[in-house]
Amino acid sequence: MKDLSNEMLQEIISEVKPLIGKGKVADYIPALAQVNNNQLGIAVYTLDGRIYHAGDASTAFSIQSISKALSLTLALSVYEEQEVWSRVGKEPSGQAFNSLVQLELEHGIPRNPFINAGALVISDLLADKLITPRFSLMELIRHLSHNPKIQFDKGVARSEFKHSARNSAIAYLMKDYDNFKNQVETVLKDYFQACSIKMNCIDLAKTFSFLANRGTPVGHKETLISPKMSKQINALLATCGLYDEAGDFAYRVGMPGKSGVGGGIIAVIPGEMSICVWSPELNESGNSLAGIAALELLTNKLSRSIF
Amino acid sequence: MKDLSNEMLQEIISEVKPLIGKGKVADYIPALAQVNNNQLGIAVYTLDGRIYHAGDASTAFSIQSISKALSLTLALSVYEEQEVWSRVGKEPSGQAFNSLVQLELEHGIPRNPFINAGALVISDLLADKLITPRFSLMELIRHLSHNPKIQFDKGVARSEFKHSARNSAIAYLMKDYDNFKNQVETVLKDYFQACSIKMNCIDLAKTFSFLANRGTPVGHKETLISPKMSKQINALLATCGLYDEAGDFAYRVGMPGKSGVGGGIIAVIPGEMSICVWSPELNESGNSLAGIAALELLTNKLSRSIF
Amino acid sequence: MKDLSNEMLQEIISEVKPLIGKGKVADYIPALAQVNNNQLGIAVYTLDGRIYHAGDASTAFSIQSISKALSLTLALSVYEEQEVWSRVGKEPSGQAFNSLVQLELEHGIPRNPFINAGALVISDLLADKLITPRFSLMELIRHLSHNPKIQFDKGVARSEFKHSARNSAIAYLMKDYDNFKNQVETVLKDYFQACSIKMNCIDLAKTFSFLANRGTPVGHKETLISPKMSKQINALLATCGLYDEAGDFAYRVGMPGKSGVGGGIIAVIPGEMSICVWSPELNESGNSLAGIAALELLTNKLSRSIF
Amino acid sequence: MKDLSNEMLQEIISEVKPLIGKGKVADYIPALAQVNNNQLGIAVYTLDGRIYHAGDASTAFSIQSISKALSLTLALSVYEEQEVWSRVGKEPSGQAFNSLVQLELEHGIPRNPFINAGALVISDLLADKLITPRFSLMELIRHLSHNPKIQFDKGVARSEFKHSARNSAIAYLMKDYDNFKNQVETVLKDYFQACSIKMNCIDLAKTFSFLANRGTPVGHKETLISPKMSKQINALLATCGLYDEAGDFAYRVGMPGKSGVGGGIIAVIPGEMSICVWSPELNESGNSLAGIAALELLTNKLSRSIF
Repeated sequence: MKDLSNEMLQEIISEVKPLIGKGKVADYIPALAQVNNNQLGIAVYTLDGRIYHAGDASTAFSIQSISKALSLTLALSVYEEQEVWSRVGKEPSGQAFNSLVQLELEHGIPRNPFINAGALVISDLLADKLITPRFSLMELIRHLSHNPKIQFDKGVARSEFKHSARNSAIAYLMKDYDNFKNQVETVLKDYFQACSIKMNCIDLAKTFSFLANRGTPVGHKETLISPKMSKQINALLATCGLYDEAGDFAYRVGMPGKSGVGGGIIAVIPGEMSICVWSPELNESGNSLAGIAALELLTNKLSRSIF
Repeated sequence: MKDLSNEMLQEIISEVKPLIGKGKVADYIPALAQVNNNQLGIAVYTLDGRIYHAGDASTAFSIQSISKALSLTLALSVYEEQEVWSRVGKEPSGQAFNSLVQLELEHGIPRNPFINAGALVISDLLADKLITPRFSLMELIRHLSHNPKIQFDKGVARSEFKHSARNSAIAYLMKDYDNFKNQVETVLKDYFQACSIKMNCIDLAKTFSFLANRGTPVGHKETLISPKMSKQINALLATCGLYDEAGDFAYRVGMPGKSGVGGGIIAVIPGEMSICVWSPELNESGNSLAGIAALELLTNKLSRSIF
Repeated sequence: MKDLSNEMLQEIISEVKPLIGKGKVADYIPALAQVNNNQLGIAVYTLDGRIYHAGDASTAFSIQSISKALSLTLALSVYEEQEVWSRVGKEPSGQAFNSLVQLELEHGIPRNPFINAGALVISDLLADKLITPRFSLMELIRHLSHNPKIQFDKGVARSEFKHSARNSAIAYLMKDYDNFKNQVETVLKDYFQACSIKMNCIDLAKTFSFLANRGTPVGHKETLISPKMSKQINALLATCGLYDEAGDFAYRVGMPGKSGVGGGIIAVIPGEMSICVWSPELNESGNSLAGIAALELLTNKLSRSIF
Repeated sequence: MKDLSNEMLQEIISEVKPLIGKGKVADYIPALAQVNNNQLGIAVYTLDGRIYHAGDASTAFSIQSISKALSLTLALSVYEEQEVWSRVGKEPSGQAFNSLVQLELEHGIPRNPFINAGALVISDLLADKLITPRFSLMELIRHLSHNPKIQFDKGVARSEFKHSARNSAIAYLMKDYDNFKNQVETVLKDYFQACSIKMNCIDLAKTFSFLANRGTPVGHKETLISPKMSKQINALLATCGLYDEAGDFAYRVGMPGKSGVGGGIIAVIPGEMSICVWSPELNESGNSLAGIAALELLTNKLSRSIF
């Protein structure tokens, strides 16, 4: 085992870089398709408040589904635990992230909060409780990252909304099962705004430090969520965080994590550190190809994983 | 956090005991249905070689699907890693443990080695490589548990074989997809023999110590499997070990684990301890009701989990 | 075999009447739930232009899905055959009429024009070609039935639109597969208007005479559709017209037919007659319980069926 | 409309012959793969006892799934109707003929007697009631065809049995749901023997005349099945006889029919005639490509169909 350092992260960047060209940048909306594929960044934030980074760790990207972990955290902070889990499950889905098959067979209750159906239920919950959920979420993110300049990318959000037919289908199917309360269009707009948030690896590593630190953001005095809840979110990330590749990610990397089609992945080693990697090219499961490889290298170099 | 002790385990037994009566003993074969439901045991084996236990920790029971974790270990010790993973996946299934739906939609490749289809593929692999797989498995178990008296329960194995129609269907479906090589009947007999093995909590906690100790059984000199492989099996257990309740188990307990319909559950905290709980009554997902509660209490009392 | 007469139809009404009370009136919208369940009517229109009827044959009811056969006829009269069948299939579905499972597995192409997904595609096609599809449909119906007083029931249409979440889900899912071109809301409104049309048994028997007469409405000079097309629509009705009960209906009754949740069923014996029965109580498959029994009796009394 | 004649059939053969080369001979067992693809025959048997034929109508071929219609007839002649229909449904399947998905979702009750699962249940029923079902079936066929020389092709039967994994899976899955009573292997052998029977178009047209003649074989004095049962089998053939192409077959041809992977198709026009066509090359749905085209031509030339 070697010690964590900027040099170690730089080594990882160098070793992983040759993978660029073997994946495929998300292209279902123009705004994502135009991203330069040749980017790779990593940042690590440790419990003692030190930040390590290498590569394009300061370049902001579209966090996309990483926002689902933050929306869930926000929901768990404003609802009783049971109110959330009566509307969405905690089990892996074994199906494509945007499939309606399982949702119909299981009568409108999504398998977990990280597939699209589950994230839409969480957005619906937030719409019930908060006046403007997107601003509450943004406020939380700026607070956790200590970066007041983080913004929505309205162009991305609008573009996603234009391609939202499948998410509309999912929301209406849940409405039919009485598991969706608000106007579909309103909730979808919030949902896409959350996905469109632009952050860099350093921001994200800091933002997720509370999951490495038993619910309290590193460097903060107040607890964000309880230690028990932090443990539970990590458990969910470990079993359901990487779409249909959760098992392989656990097998290769062994950390709770959440990916987005913008190419970012956040991961945590509870009690030690939070990590963010980013590289826009995706593998066939829709997760950052070089990003997973970087995390795997890091876990091997540090001899650290939860298993 | 309190220190691990026999007294702590005794407390757990006392607190959990009232749950007995709220579950249901497996009754699909008479031999299992006849088990006295009023039993509850726990054993913990730490990396320094100490054993703690309480309740019916010395009473042997049918390990059933817990054997799947041992068969996988045996397969990984006699095959190249890739030979195994070309035949069976590493992802959660999101379906009942004995369903054929997903198996057909995914062309005969089981989702993971812990659902029935996956375990049958592992048995098929062992049948190709070993002369008498059941004896090799028994030898491994006696060696790991330091208990040469462990036996098959031939009555249970015969009884299971008589009720094997669904497992036959699964095996033949895989044969149709060319993912099953040996005679179905021969492999099923091995499979049911493995499930029929009788062990107690202490035996099982010792047997699984290698997963807590980076591949080397506690108190042994030789490595059983590599640290990397040990980490990988733990990752699989965490995402797929408790049938369709893996997510909830991770959420409540937060340890890699494997359950059996005999009411046993093994779990590990890597770097610290291996644990076995047993109580015959099952919840609706087919996992020991009191067993899961006992593990949840233990994790809370010790403030230990992987998350 | 006896000769068709009003007395024969009266006998059928008497024999079938005791079934009333054994089914269940559709209650998913109030307007349908309020219908008096104790009604039963039958009308037969023969190729020589005679009308026979008994029971409540002059009472108008909500035609509901019977409109799907008329919308398909309208679509086939304004489109090239192939334009229609590239968008929707001709095979039985083997699934509930409003399921999304098969639609997703088959990439947004509905199995046939009589399940909800297929009927929505037909409405979408009509919306592309006609300025106000609902008025074109109404014009056709008034022309075929010789009854200019037939009306939409706007209350029913509005009420259906309020409960349209599942149909919205279906339409958006097809939009995601690029098999739905117009605004979902616009098409749904046309679709529900068509379902809301109120007609009585005599109107409906007359309206469907073209399917008994090789495409030319009885008593009309102009052909509505070609003999080949008439044969083809009958074939579709025979294999797909009664939801998930098409096989049993063919087995018991042996005529091409189409049912609606308002309790109406139309059926034809090609070359001989068109028939409409109506009774509001439905069986478990959503088809008129007494209506099917009346058709079965008629086929036995006349010794007439297509088989 | 022209009159039926050998010349008309010869015209059909000439018009359809150019299709040969556009399909694909079944090749899952060598015995079928070796059949000369360049063959095409047709035979028509009318209610007045005349036989018309053209092309290779005297060449015997493997009847394969056409036997399912005969096994069902045999079962309905030795069981009460309800005993049969409590074990197998009467609805189209909407799934591939050998799929297990629907069978599991519907708890082991096959959709109809013409998909593999349903035909296996019928074979299981025959095994319960008859001493040697295959000989009873052969006796029936020789009797109906007036041809005592019809034989099983034991090579084909053995070859099928060697490739029977999927059918074994189906049978065991039904056994698990308690819808299969006898030894799987025994029933499969009967099933494959029935499929292996070799007959020519003339034999088959004669054999199925009872379905055109209200249950009584043309030229026979005794009724084989009741008029009602004959009508019902025709209804089943019309909705379920051509695998996943039943709707398209009804649309194009408009007759009750049953196909086999040997390239044969039987069809009937109730009250008029029974027909057999044969050409070994299959379309993508597994039905004779030229055979369907020949039936479509015949229906157009005669202006005859049930619709």
